[in-house]
Amino acid sequence: MQTKIISFAKETNLQNTTDKICAKNMSKKLTKRSEDYSKWYNELVTRADLAENSAVRGCMVIKPYGFAIWEKMQAELDKKFKATGHQNAYFPLFVPKSLFEAEEKNAEGFAKECAVVTHYRLKNNPDEKGKLMVDPEAKLEEELVVRPTSEAIIWNTYKNWIQSYRDLPILINQWANVVRWEMRTRLFLRTAEFLWQEGHTAHATEQEAMDETLLINNLYADFVENFMAIPVIKGVKTESERFAGAVETHCIEALMQDGKALQAGTSHFLGQNFAQAFDVKFATATGGLDHVWATSWGVSTRLMGALIMTHSDDHGLVLPPNLAPIQVVIVPIYKGQEQLEEISKVAHQVQEQLSAKGIAVKYDDRDNVKPGLKFNDYELKGVPLRIAIGPKDLEKGQVELARRDTLSKSFVPQEELATQIPALLEEIQEALFTRALRFREEHITPVDDFESFQKVLNEKGGFLSAHWDGTAETEEAIKKKTKATIRCIPYTSKEESGLCVYSGKPSNQRVLFAKAY
Amino acid sequence: MQTKIISFAKETNLQNTTDKICAKNMSKKLTKRSEDYSKWYNELVTRADLAENSAVRGCMVIKPYGFAIWEKMQAELDKKFKATGHQNAYFPLFVPKSLFEAEEKNAEGFAKECAVVTHYRLKNNPDEKGKLMVDPEAKLEEELVVRPTSEAIIWNTYKNWIQSYRDLPILINQWANVVRWEMRTRLFLRTAEFLWQEGHTAHATEQEAMDETLLINNLYADFVENFMAIPVIKGVKTESERFAGAVETHCIEALMQDGKALQAGTSHFLGQNFAQAFDVKFATATGGLDHVWATSWGVSTRLMGALIMTHSDDHGLVLPPNLAPIQVVIVPIYKGQEQLEEISKVAHQVQEQLSAKGIAVKYDDRDNVKPGLKFNDYELKGVPLRIAIGPKDLEKGQVELARRDTLSKSFVPQEELATQIPALLEEIQEALFTRALRFREEHITPVDDFESFQKVLNEKGGFLSAHWDGTAETEEAIKKKTKATIRCIPYTSKEESGLCVYSGKPSNQRVLFAKAY
Repeated sequence: MQTKIISFAKETNLQNTTDKICAKNMSKKLTKRSEDYSKWYNELVTRADLAENSAVRGCMVIKPYGFAIWEKMQAELDKKFKATGHQNAYFPLFVPKSLFEAEEKNAEGFAKECAVVTHYRLKNNPDEKGKLMVDPEAKLEEELVVRPTSEAIIWNTYKNWIQSYRDLPILINQWANVVRWEMRTRLFLRTAEFLWQEGHTAHATEQEAMDETLLINNLYADFVENFMAIPVIKGVKTESERFAGAVETHCIEALMQDGKALQAGTSHFLGQNFAQAFDVKFATATGGLDHVWATSWGVSTRLMGALIMTHSDDHGLVLPPNLAPIQVVIVPIYKGQEQLEEISKVAHQVQEQLSAKGIAVKYDDRDNVKPGLKFNDYELKGVPLRIAIGPKDLEKGQVELARRDTLSKSFVPQEELATQIPALLEEIQEALFTRALRFREEHITPVDDFESFQKVLNEKGGFLSAHWDGTAETEEAIKKKTKATIRCIPYTSKEESGLCVYSGKPSNQRVLFAKAY
Repeated sequence: MQTKIISFAKETNLQNTTDKICAKNMSKKLTKRSEDYSKWYNELVTRADLAENSAVRGCMVIKPYGFAIWEKMQAELDKKFKATGHQNAYFPLFVPKSLFEAEEKNAEGFAKECAVVTHYRLKNNPDEKGKLMVDPEAKLEEELVVRPTSEAIIWNTYKNWIQSYRDLPILINQWANVVRWEMRTRLFLRTAEFLWQEGHTAHATEQEAMDETLLINNLYADFVENFMAIPVIKGVKTESERFAGAVETHCIEALMQDGKALQAGTSHFLGQNFAQAFDVKFATATGGLDHVWATSWGVSTRLMGALIMTHSDDHGLVLPPNLAPIQVVIVPIYKGQEQLEEISKVAHQVQEQLSAKGIAVKYDDRDNVKPGLKFNDYELKGVPLRIAIGPKDLEKGQVELARRDTLSKSFVPQEELATQIPALLEEIQEALFTRALRFREEHITPVDDFESFQKVLNEKGGFLSAHWDGTAETEEAIKKKTKATIRCIPYTSKEESGLCVYSGKPSNQRVLFAKAY
């Protein structure tokens, strides 16, 4: 349908006008990261057509281009979950208040940000024609919380599924929307409604639940590093950063270009907390009766934020080939219909060859947009490779190939494209990871006194590797003074005697501090 | 993990107990369809592990086995949507009341079944320790409706996306949960929360929007018939059965085994109603300014109900191979470990051969469940083909192959399985459709007077093909007297002079009446 409309448009005099509008939009440069990182991010998200704010406070619209990237993440994660024995299911959006409050710590942690359904009907407003009002007669006996997370509703369900050790383990994941009424929201990073997956597993032994917690944290790390090209640090949260209701929260922490950390995924060992709150017991293999052990874990559309702030530049989005909805775009450079037809023949050939190798290629032969604008647009949208073909290239049997990550160009013989491009996409995927890893490594700074701590935090940013006395008081004091929190105690942290960077009290290992999203 | 636990279990004395529990559960027969169809349905849904009621009134839990079937539907539909140029996106769960009421007919149609969020915070209840209450100070300025459908929030968004004909068409689909506060609910068929996809498209011309409406209704029919093996009748709804806010509602109607119809999908031509309500205008190619033309369309987890009530029998679920999470199950019949090992060798070979052909095969060598119980369980769950292998089969180089749809058994040489089974799965897929089609064809009864209408409706059920005078009054009167509604005016309905079956007034075509889910 689109093609028809465009060719019709060529015959009208609106074309130039639209070109101009187009040009105006596209030539408006992004704010530079060095000028205002936060502004750069917001502009990029909307101008690259990833997402936008909606009419509902704090809720976003994920646009098709952004959603296509999220779908690729979903597909890969889903495959990994299934390969490790998990199944998908679906639990209700609403949690009755009485269930919600059953696990006290969990309830306390989320109560302040709950959207609450109190009524089930609207009626005509007698005072204003054509307007509706909440029907006071349709008040619910018990209020329903829109799930901020699903432990409560799920454990209330598992209670009926589990009698004996033979019913265990239960390894379930759910793809869902959740709502947390955040006061200050930002697209992808912190929204009132977001999309995520939440795994909820039930086990017969503590060891098995802990193994699951680690399995998933490692699975997340593998996914984020090898699929999204974002290096992460695996570790454990301190008590004050723990998920409400968890015994241990494991996490993966990434570092953004502006030196702030971003929690990219969490895997919680819940102990028997929820089993106790919901009275879920099982007959053990040895004839006893025990509470079930649990884990829960999730990643969300927040990963889109991590993706953007790890790889992108002042020209726009930079996408790892694994996540790019368009991996290669072909743009013809021509004058007149005849040249276009010649170029199109070659372009279609190339497109076919690459498609046959499973590469997502787009040929953009729109006649109403100039090549330069197309270049800008695909740069903004992070398409990893761009092929340009002009009349001279035809003569020479070559194309111009541009890499989005390095912004470098080269000429490549047409017949080599089908072999060079798959290799190049792999190379880009790796190069992005390596670049991000180098940045991350350069931004882990050991500090041993509080003055250096503050200086490095403010001047260089990144992770500060510092001794901490293990108390919540010190953690809180540091947070108040510097806005830095303990991101995690890394798995790799070695035992090492030292003095707490803040209190001077003894400490036996370093932890990672950072300002964080 | 599961394997380990089971082998551990073998050594304990709990095995027999559990076997007995298992036996008790499984030998409890389903209610027969002829006794109580509705009870049969409810039992089947829960006992085949498809879904169950939750703690939230009217909301269901979709269990892993049921969800695996829904995922297969989703994957196929998603492929079809993308192949016809549609993209996925995501819009907010909440609709501010003022947007919700903008399209008056739509608002009126859904107002009475809306879950409404009025507050965004809970707080500790000072009167009851450990309990929470809605914080009266966290009342929203404007109430939020949990989307019963997303036209309002989406058209409010499209408003900002559309300036010129060049921005059209917009072809977007969303996979989402929606909430309609139904008073009488039934698993899959009518639940307060359900999962669905909703397409929302915007077009420059009436013709294009109408083409889209038809394209999708045909796509739905193709999917339901060829993938789910459920025959449907394509048609148009009468005004009183139309979607609230639509100009025309197209639909596909299926017939259940008990003679009641089920609306399996709808595709709405919305005209310019939503564009007018949300003031969405575009610069036309010829320099004018016009309101945008729209469609919306959806299918939901209700299709699970249609699936169950089209194919299943008194033994349980019958699944078309396309939708079966397990297409072939292999059950060993043995005494002692040695026999099991011999059989397992062959079973694994068969499993490998079939897996290589893309068939989902499960080998069930659980030692704590007797073959008969396994047979019952896989029958209950609708697994299309069951292979049993005993010691005699090993000697003869054969297996026993049982078809779930016909409950027939035969012996097949092992070496023929890899060719016979793929063919057989196709045959079953077709046979299920043919059987359902025959039933449907036998249950379309032309009736020409109201006495026959009532008699056929009550004694035979199914669709009644009858003349109707075209008025909503007659439709309403018939509905009141018989509970039958006009399911659709079929695309294939021919012009034919006649007299309305109820009023005796002139009519120029037959329509299809039925009682419906």
